[in-house]
Amino acid sequence: MKIAILPGDGIGPEIVAQAVKVLNALDEQFELETAPVGGAGYEAAGHPLPEATLALAQAADAVLFGAVGDWKYDTLDRPLRPEQAILGLRKNLGLFANLRPAILYPELAGASTLKPEVVSGLDILIIRELTGDIYFGQPRGVRECPDGPFKGQREGFDTMRYAEGEIRRIAHVAFQAAQKRDKRLTSVDKANVLETFQFWKDIVTDVHKEYPDVALDHMYVDNAAMQLVRAPKKFDVIVTGNMFGDILSDAAAMLTGSIGMLPSASLDANNKGLYEPSHGSAPDIAGKGVANPLATILSAAMLLRFSLGRDEQAERIENAVKAVLAQGLRTPDIHEAGTTKVGTEQMGDAVVAALA
Amino acid sequence: MKIAILPGDGIGPEIVAQAVKVLNALDEQFELETAPVGGAGYEAAGHPLPEATLALAQAADAVLFGAVGDWKYDTLDRPLRPEQAILGLRKNLGLFANLRPAILYPELAGASTLKPEVVSGLDILIIRELTGDIYFGQPRGVRECPDGPFKGQREGFDTMRYAEGEIRRIAHVAFQAAQKRDKRLTSVDKANVLETFQFWKDIVTDVHKEYPDVALDHMYVDNAAMQLVRAPKKFDVIVTGNMFGDILSDAAAMLTGSIGMLPSASLDANNKGLYEPSHGSAPDIAGKGVANPLATILSAAMLLRFSLGRDEQAERIENAVKAVLAQGLRTPDIHEAGTTKVGTEQMGDAVVAALA
Ligand SMILES: CC(C)[C@H](C(=O)O)[C@@H](O)C(=O)O
Ligand SMILES: CC(C)[C@H](C(=O)O)[C@@H](O)C(=O)O
Repeated sequence: MKIAILPGDGIGPEIVAQAVKVLNALDEQFELETAPVGGAGYEAAGHPLPEATLALAQAADAVLFGAVGDWKYDTLDRPLRPEQAILGLRKNLGLFANLRPAILYPELAGASTLKPEVVSGLDILIIRELTGDIYFGQPRGVRECPDGPFKGQREGFDTMRYAEGEIRRIAHVAFQAAQKRDKRLTSVDKANVLETFQFWKDIVTDVHKEYPDVALDHMYVDNAAMQLVRAPKKFDVIVTGNMFGDILSDAAAMLTGSIGMLPSASLDANNKGLYEPSHGSAPDIAGKGVANPLATILSAAMLLRFSLGRDEQAERIENAVKAVLAQGLRTPDIHEAGTTKVGTEQMGDAVVAALA
Repeated sequence: MKIAILPGDGIGPEIVAQAVKVLNALDEQFELETAPVGGAGYEAAGHPLPEATLALAQAADAVLFGAVGDWKYDTLDRPLRPEQAILGLRKNLGLFANLRPAILYPELAGASTLKPEVVSGLDILIIRELTGDIYFGQPRGVRECPDGPFKGQREGFDTMRYAEGEIRRIAHVAFQAAQKRDKRLTSVDKANVLETFQFWKDIVTDVHKEYPDVALDHMYVDNAAMQLVRAPKKFDVIVTGNMFGDILSDAAAMLTGSIGMLPSASLDANNKGLYEPSHGSAPDIAGKGVANPLATILSAAMLLRFSLGRDEQAERIENAVKAVLAQGLRTPDIHEAGTTKVGTEQMGDAVVAALA
């Protein structure tokens, strides 16, 4: 079993190093191979997703990804910017199903900006379609405005689209995930305005016939954004498109106040996947040894479970993370009075120790 | 001065009735003319935006709008559904600038699901472009997928687009609004993925040159959704497109916990406008006399200020609303222990009394 390790930029290398330490501390050893991606890819090979990196990701059984992006690349042409690496990996590997749990660890309830009674025990799963929608739709660009009151001016434009099969496959993933949880699925759309999402709603409704044990409801995206703030615990599983999912999954993660704890998985049709923390590359704290490695370590656990079928090893890691939290260890992002502040490496070491 | 009164559906008629009572209690009398819209328009004339209603709105100096929508119209063809009325009014009247304040009244701090220290004193203004973007872009529909792995299947599609002039005019509105406040403007985009919003960012940056006294920053929409949850008070004015604005303005409103208090204005190039509460038609509580009329009453105040230039009258109404809150009067949506629960009419009467 081979795992591609793509640390990326900013805090990526230091947090991925901790996850690698944890993987190396397991009984079973996996083949780990590292390659540059994002700004690091651009520095090493002139492209955010160097050919050799893509080839490694394609050949591996799973990918552990850190984070990409740094202000210093903001002035590059868009195709050379770090975030193109993650878009390219998703598209090239066919990683259409993004699973983002938003879980509030009981020990970290205080970190949330929401009142404890609103978020304590929060456990929702957002499933975001990841290879379609306005992220990849063609045509797109800047052109001369063809009609209307602004005719003849320049205009920026993009195409939103979802084909039937694309909606069906993500709906199946979502219904099956709901079956393993509280059997409630909320499909988020904007069917009252967008043709794409009226179509989405119709297809999800049709797929529902195959999952009579799951309760399905439909919610407009603006309302979903409100309900996440008002009563997030009412949700079980949410499924939505790429663009709405980008916004809602980040909002949901932030409800916990501890986005440094949240892993994510991006899966293809055969459960091959890319695993990454839900947070970004945080260039402002890179190299300072203060970043929280737990989201990346938990991403490695997801990798073991979903792509390698090593449920037991995954659980060992998850229990080790719970143990270090119970010991009171906290990186600065989740630190509060009465707990012990530790750095990135110390946290990684503590997880390794807790594995035993 | 003529005001078109469009009560609409659900709680629309009862809350608009209170605002009308308040308008009639002012020293100066305005000509008020009522017409059906939304589901009520469909019932009366077979269309959510009957011709006579549109003509009235066009002829009037301003429009006071209640709310539209009811589940019973969900099965109608989309062009006949209530929400088409509001889209049609925006487009036909050229109401491109939607101003949505998210303000937390000190007396209502407890209503928020966020911790008091995170939201107390919240006062942000979201400016949403309202007649462009993927809401109106052509082409759109369901077609045969022209290429890619789903070629030949049906696909839903829509077009996102913004012309230069559309971005310029909303940017001017936003910079000028910021000049009257804390002089900080956040432009929300998704320039890292969308051509439309890279273009948006470039144009907003260019318009900024005319407003050197305003500090401009750019934020990705997913990050904006997070920052609204994490530290909403850091924002002053936010400007964004129609689709992102739909989502973010509702999220921002919900941060206050008292969306029943929040008015909105949708303005054309000459400050003619449509004014409506930020909440919806709430068919579940329609006719029960429990809906909060204050957002609609405050919308009437915005109408007086922005479209009729009656600042003094607007302020009188706003002060009357503050007075009834200080008296401890609360509709059920904002009621808490120690305050006096009142119904829709009582609340309207109390505002009229407080005008004196
Ligand atoms: C970096 C960016 C292109 C990306 C996205 O929008 O998908 C990020 O926000 C994410 O959610 O992984
Ligand atoms: C009813 C709907 C079409 C509308 C919109 O999406 O603009 C509403 O959500 C709003 O924000 O006024």
